[in-house]
Amino acid sequence: MNIKIVRYVVGRLLQVEALLLILPLIVSFIYEEAIIYKISFFAVILFLLIVGQVLAFKMPDNKRLTAREGFVIVALSWVLFSFFGGLPFVINGDIPSLVDAFFETSSGFTTTGSSILTDVEILAHSSLFWRSFTHLVGGMGILVFALAILPKIDSQSVNIMKAETPGPTFGKLVSKLSTSARILYTIYLAMTVVVVALLYFGGMNLFDSLLHSFGVAGTGGFGIRNGSIAPYETPYFEWVIGIGMLVFGINFNLIYLFLLGKFKQVWESEELKWYILIVTGAVGLICMNLFSTYHSFSVLIRDVFFTVSSIITTTGFSTADFGKWPLFSQTILLLLMFVGACAGSTAGGLKVSRVVVYAKIFVAEVKRMANPSRIVTVLYDKKPLNKNTKHSVANYLIIYFLLFAGMLVLLTLDVPDFLSAFSAVAATFNNIGPALGVVGPAHSFAELTDFSKIILSFGMLAGRLEIFPILILFSPRTWKK
Amino acid sequence: MNIKIVRYVVGRLLQVEALLLILPLIVSFIYEEAIIYKISFFAVILFLLIVGQVLAFKMPDNKRLTAREGFVIVALSWVLFSFFGGLPFVINGDIPSLVDAFFETSSGFTTTGSSILTDVEILAHSSLFWRSFTHLVGGMGILVFALAILPKIDSQSVNIMKAETPGPTFGKLVSKLSTSARILYTIYLAMTVVVVALLYFGGMNLFDSLLHSFGVAGTGGFGIRNGSIAPYETPYFEWVIGIGMLVFGINFNLIYLFLLGKFKQVWESEELKWYILIVTGAVGLICMNLFSTYHSFSVLIRDVFFTVSSIITTTGFSTADFGKWPLFSQTILLLLMFVGACAGSTAGGLKVSRVVVYAKIFVAEVKRMANPSRIVTVLYDKKPLNKNTKHSVANYLIIYFLLFAGMLVLLTLDVPDFLSAFSAVAATFNNIGPALGVVGPAHSFAELTDFSKIILSFGMLAGRLEIFPILILFSPRTWKK
Repeated sequence: MNIKIVRYVVGRLLQVEALLLILPLIVSFIYEEAIIYKISFFAVILFLLIVGQVLAFKMPDNKRLTAREGFVIVALSWVLFSFFGGLPFVINGDIPSLVDAFFETSSGFTTTGSSILTDVEILAHSSLFWRSFTHLVGGMGILVFALAILPKIDSQSVNIMKAETPGPTFGKLVSKLSTSARILYTIYLAMTVVVVALLYFGGMNLFDSLLHSFGVAGTGGFGIRNGSIAPYETPYFEWVIGIGMLVFGINFNLIYLFLLGKFKQVWESEELKWYILIVTGAVGLICMNLFSTYHSFSVLIRDVFFTVSSIITTTGFSTADFGKWPLFSQTILLLLMFVGACAGSTAGGLKVSRVVVYAKIFVAEVKRMANPSRIVTVLYDKKPLNKNTKHSVANYLIIYFLLFAGMLVLLTLDVPDFLSAFSAVAATFNNIGPALGVVGPAHSFAELTDFSKIILSFGMLAGRLEIFPILILFSPRTWKK
Repeated sequence: MNIKIVRYVVGRLLQVEALLLILPLIVSFIYEEAIIYKISFFAVILFLLIVGQVLAFKMPDNKRLTAREGFVIVALSWVLFSFFGGLPFVINGDIPSLVDAFFETSSGFTTTGSSILTDVEILAHSSLFWRSFTHLVGGMGILVFALAILPKIDSQSVNIMKAETPGPTFGKLVSKLSTSARILYTIYLAMTVVVVALLYFGGMNLFDSLLHSFGVAGTGGFGIRNGSIAPYETPYFEWVIGIGMLVFGINFNLIYLFLLGKFKQVWESEELKWYILIVTGAVGLICMNLFSTYHSFSVLIRDVFFTVSSIITTTGFSTADFGKWPLFSQTILLLLMFVGACAGSTAGGLKVSRVVVYAKIFVAEVKRMANPSRIVTVLYDKKPLNKNTKHSVANYLIIYFLLFAGMLVLLTLDVPDFLSAFSAVAATFNNIGPALGVVGPAHSFAELTDFSKIILSFGMLAGRLEIFPILILFSPRTWKK
């Protein structure tokens, strides 16, 4: 492995994190917070700038950046971003434990939204801001952001972008990667601004509008009040946030095509069609299941739409207490947690495109079994699906479930009941956020041991990066000379 | 599809079931049971002989029997065997409901062992005998048995045997199929006789020895006393049954090779090695987990070994109340339920060979991702694994989980809690038997609605036949002209 290029890129990235940390520092000045908050951010900024400069002192001559280096850079930078990003919380005392801070910041960058905090309202504005801001950064990707502002590492960085972008296939928008990254980020930020404006002009204050929008954009789900978005439960806010989450669950390449006016291409996207179909189907089934328990149809449809949107995009905001819904509705929601939204969006889970391929493989296998001599092709987007893609997608499920089982077994070593252990793994690995049982909405992940918190932090990172970068980072082969 | 050959073979098979039903008829004479028992078996025998003769009146000219016909014959005969096999219970009143009788008999033939009975001890001897005898017949396979005694349908029946034998690959022992079937059945019955003898000479009465042996051989798990094997909880019986189950979880082809003295081939079987390793590992981990709670090491090891053996072979006999074990131990057992024992044995689940391939695909994919230009081959039994086999095995997991999710959603329509619904699907689809919650050991499947019972009956059949036959049976394409 070309360690020098890894060192160089990671060094530059740590400096990017330093730049990002300037924003909460500004917030701490605006709200005239205690000096320790200013120090905490300033100290980490300084530290990251220096360490980054030491690591990236000299551009290496050998700029070869293969898939392996791409994965290692992505995994390493996400782990380090989460670690160093948690330091200000430790220094200023808002989250005194190092492991808790790592968990909370991983949860932020990976847009999971699981929290070890039992009372978020005691946090300083700067801490709250940084915590939610990690959703915005992590949503589109740390490295996509870096690529947009660091053109120097463009030449071979396709392997970086591949490793960070969720979904079975990866499409560049334009030939130059840094330009693609800049286009994506511009769209992403513009959409976020729209959500901020809609919330602000609907009567939310600017700070809350910003932080909620970060959660929506990154499909993250960190609340800034105890009880998720409860203080803002008006039909207007629910619809803005509900629709907002759903839009951020769409593949950004499609949104780009849409903005270019290529409506036909957008309309022909099979993933989008299935995404809409699954959401509509889930809303319909759950509405039927709940029909007799609601007095108002408009409240019913709003509650169900918001919940489905929040769950399928793996955001995790909640308005209705779906823990009290009938088992059938809850099971539909549970399945949506595993499905997730579209590839190339900010959402977690398996992704709609993979699930569609699974359904098609199901049908194709039954046909092939009944008639082994027949050649059965799987069509996707009206073209025969590339064999390698098909096999990678199929194998992904194997890796997904084996890893899931492994984490589950480790977690049962200190979580008391099966529901809590299972839902904790599902909620973090799929980047959803709140789990059930002792880690449910009424409690928090605070009650777990450090051992479990570290397992789940890596689960969140593995889920967000679609497993391989984290596995390759820890593979002994990677670090052999 | 060649409907005529399907009709012919199914007709002959119904006559085979008539012959099997003679045994419980004899039992009802031996125990001098009420006339209704004799009538119930006799009537069904007569009915099956006549209907069978009508269907198989004339051997069709076109004897073509492709994969599709193979699957349809297997699926149809299992459904019909379960349906008609349940009729005596309905007639003699031991299980008055038709749906219950279908559920119980499917559970028997598929060697699941889930029961709708709350009190098995009130059943007549003949009913108890027939109920357990279905385990013996279903264990090795209804059609393998038929092939052994009906040489006429030999020529193209490889497609039948393929469709009925569990596991990703199918190996004939000798070139002639009916000879293979006869060898397999002879080994199987001889091994069963050994278990009967060991139980009988250990002090169990003959009737109980026979019925327990049927459960062990088929890895079925129907108890004949309330409380599984509780009345016979002595170290001797526990070891005989514990080891017996484990042996019946081995691929019968290996046992054949072993009997031929080809020890080297047996020893080189990768599946056997992993099977032993998984059992040893699970016993070790659970023993460590339980160590402090047991006073006697010999009781500990016996309890754990029996439970692991019963679970991995998907038998479902129980001695220790593992519902009270720590969560870690329970989770290990839960994973074993999905693993199952070896391909080509009488056990259910995914099978060890598939799980081993999954683990190897996991490693290969990580290697391939890190270095896309490298060619990574998956070795199995020291040979590169055939590509088609690899893909079928990978795709099987997709089909398995999609079907699992579908049954789960349907079941949540009338089961009150998630644990009960999930465990009911897991216990039936993997052919294990007892589930948890409202369908747990203290209750029975009796409390479910007919709708759920029918779903689960087909789940048991799909699990036993490894899904495809049942799906193909219900595919509209199969029945198109």
